[in-house]
Amino acid sequence: MGDLNEISAFDAVNGIRTKRFTSQQLVADCITRIERREPSVRAWAHFDPEYAMAEAKKADQKQDQGGKLGPLHGIPVGIKDVIDAKEMPGEHGSPIFAQRVPKEDSDAVIQLKNAGAIIMGKTVTTEMANLAPSKTRNPRDLKRSPGGSSSGSAASVADFHVPLALGTQTGGSVIRPASFNGVYGLKPTVGTISRNGMLLQSHTLDTIGVYARNLADLAIINNCLIVKSTDSTSEEILEQGHKVFKNWSKNSETPKFAFLETPAWPEADVGAKKAIETAITSLSSACKRERLPDPFSEIIDYHAAVFAAENSYYYGPFLDNHSELLSKKLRDRLIASKATLASEYISALNARDKIYHSLETLLNDYDAVLCLAATGAAPIGFETTGSAIFNGLWTYLGVPCLSLPLLSTEKMPLGLQLVGKRGNERELFGTANWIENHLKTY
Amino acid sequence: MGDLNEISAFDAVNGIRTKRFTSQQLVADCITRIERREPSVRAWAHFDPEYAMAEAKKADQKQDQGGKLGPLHGIPVGIKDVIDAKEMPGEHGSPIFAQRVPKEDSDAVIQLKNAGAIIMGKTVTTEMANLAPSKTRNPRDLKRSPGGSSSGSAASVADFHVPLALGTQTGGSVIRPASFNGVYGLKPTVGTISRNGMLLQSHTLDTIGVYARNLADLAIINNCLIVKSTDSTSEEILEQGHKVFKNWSKNSETPKFAFLETPAWPEADVGAKKAIETAITSLSSACKRERLPDPFSEIIDYHAAVFAAENSYYYGPFLDNHSELLSKKLRDRLIASKATLASEYISALNARDKIYHSLETLLNDYDAVLCLAATGAAPIGFETTGSAIFNGLWTYLGVPCLSLPLLSTEKMPLGLQLVGKRGNERELFGTANWIENHLKTY
Repeated sequence: MGDLNEISAFDAVNGIRTKRFTSQQLVADCITRIERREPSVRAWAHFDPEYAMAEAKKADQKQDQGGKLGPLHGIPVGIKDVIDAKEMPGEHGSPIFAQRVPKEDSDAVIQLKNAGAIIMGKTVTTEMANLAPSKTRNPRDLKRSPGGSSSGSAASVADFHVPLALGTQTGGSVIRPASFNGVYGLKPTVGTISRNGMLLQSHTLDTIGVYARNLADLAIINNCLIVKSTDSTSEEILEQGHKVFKNWSKNSETPKFAFLETPAWPEADVGAKKAIETAITSLSSACKRERLPDPFSEIIDYHAAVFAAENSYYYGPFLDNHSELLSKKLRDRLIASKATLASEYISALNARDKIYHSLETLLNDYDAVLCLAATGAAPIGFETTGSAIFNGLWTYLGVPCLSLPLLSTEKMPLGLQLVGKRGNERELFGTANWIENHLKTY
Repeated sequence: MGDLNEISAFDAVNGIRTKRFTSQQLVADCITRIERREPSVRAWAHFDPEYAMAEAKKADQKQDQGGKLGPLHGIPVGIKDVIDAKEMPGEHGSPIFAQRVPKEDSDAVIQLKNAGAIIMGKTVTTEMANLAPSKTRNPRDLKRSPGGSSSGSAASVADFHVPLALGTQTGGSVIRPASFNGVYGLKPTVGTISRNGMLLQSHTLDTIGVYARNLADLAIINNCLIVKSTDSTSEEILEQGHKVFKNWSKNSETPKFAFLETPAWPEADVGAKKAIETAITSLSSACKRERLPDPFSEIIDYHAAVFAAENSYYYGPFLDNHSELLSKKLRDRLIASKATLASEYISALNARDKIYHSLETLLNDYDAVLCLAATGAAPIGFETTGSAIFNGLWTYLGVPCLSLPLLSTEKMPLGLQLVGKRGNERELFGTANWIENHLKTY
């Protein structure tokens, strides 16, 4: 075969089911790709080709024996290294967790295994999914950052190591790397994917998200994670992955988008602004420029206060007991976060319902909010993983966000971000499919 | 009549229903009592006899016309002045709210009105239900504090002004005054009575509670507040008020009590300790002295941290904008509370599930926890409303607490406190009935 690593998860599932090729052939092609590219891209924190091949063999044997096949049967998936997979190192990108090997799978990994996926390995995270950059390089331009904190997950999918990967987002850790690496990323509604078995840094914000190279794959892996395996058959999940795109909206032929600059707009590059303005122009009457409702005015500060307060609670013990093993960036941040007052935190938490309500009201008239996924192209150099300012506000509200690789600037990909109401992933995927078809053909 | 103010709510309901007397006669006797005693006891923040008589007249007319009668038809109830009743002043015991007259009833008052109760007036609260003492005196000994913060509610019930009243508890504001004034008090499971329309000082802790002069009355008013009026008929609620006592426990003939000293024990008076030890002795094998589970060790600090954090959020604006209208006690407390760190607050919140789980495990072997309701008799003088140290821990856990006026010290009443699992008010009332019968007759 040789290039099975380049096909979509959906095509791979069908190829294996119809015995055009085996999981072992697919996984072997992925391994070849990883071995060739890993020295430059550095996407993997733990990668054991023998384990992956052994799992693929088991998958093929199960199929040969007529076993029931899950919706991701035989498909390799990368797992961000803050999400536990048993018997694989789980070092969270920090020397504090050196040699740590969890004994249990996280709930998300259990769901993936139940769906038949092959756990390909652990992808590189920034230090404890926080800001200090990792060793990973952007496969689109090795001189650039892949973004963070889900650096390895986005890079490995973009670079055809695996068709699917899990990330996590507390600020902009799923959507920003999706934008920088030119892949599809989803941060679903907070709470829809179990966080049991992942490193928590903020219980209000932390959300597991997914990466793929097309929308259908993204919908399928998301459905495997949010839908309990007993609730839907494999066929239903696979069908859903495609069906959502046929019915993008119940009520009208053309979806309506509300373009929001958001309070982050002044920080966007000229090139990024130009790219999204061009897209908006091409959408013409399907897209209307809207003002953010008033309750949004302090949202970036509210996100920061919730992050600081909860991060200080979860990571405070590392500052107290392992200060020397923290990067200066994280240490300084935790020292500052520790000063967050309880009253500021409660203020920030209590404002959320009102702000969300104002977004909900706006979304009664639109199918989705449309905005930039990042301030610009992936930054050159490795001092920073880029700004999450276009993402933190949505993470704070717990709403689903999609990044679609439909824009570009500096000859690099740039994400178009779609945002929906809580729980409306399905409608958001449909709307995304419409906009993708529209912008690809205009 | 002349002494209808002394009968129980249950007897009053039946007396009115069977037309042995009218609501107007009952209310008139209560008014006479209030007018005679109020100069000494000072339990009322707002009291308008004409309004009360007019409402009683309406109740009697409704009955004459064959209208459907609620479970508290024609019964006067006192409302703590942090809970809104429309068109009555709602000054929260603070000059900051001078002349404030809410336009809407609180949910609790709506429920009471739906049950047919006559809103007799607003009872005195300490300053914004916090620590600074009010003008109210203890009717059992006018030289003593009635406790706080529900000072007027407990005193008015104890002194036969009304058979029933509403209080609120954030630390020990229902149970402590019940203990000091020798009445029955219930702080139900947090969240079972709506707080809509009450002054919030801590969303985690604030709980509306009830006062009466016997257990059946307490159960009836609690049922009116927790049960939506459409869910149960008047007859069912009244019957429940009595029936719970017949079936105090499903599984055995004699209930089992776990006596807990709690971390507050060193602060109890010698007389209070002696009083409860005597009761325990008389319970013999029905009561076993238990050690508090380990997770309880820091519970008093956790309660304090949650109170400080949330109080600083809710009352911080008063400190910022009306500092000169606050008592020195509240001002100093709010200044100190403001320094509470978010990480301390989250710590205190997150410990709750584990501690509650350990209590639940203990209560799998017992019908109720038994402990002191207060450190001793009501304090002499008016510098303080007494210590809430036997109450804050249970408020923090959100569990139901009953204070029964079965102990005494210094020739003053002292409450025996029963504590149950969340949501188990019904069982707790039954257990309380058993212990009351037992201790009255031994």
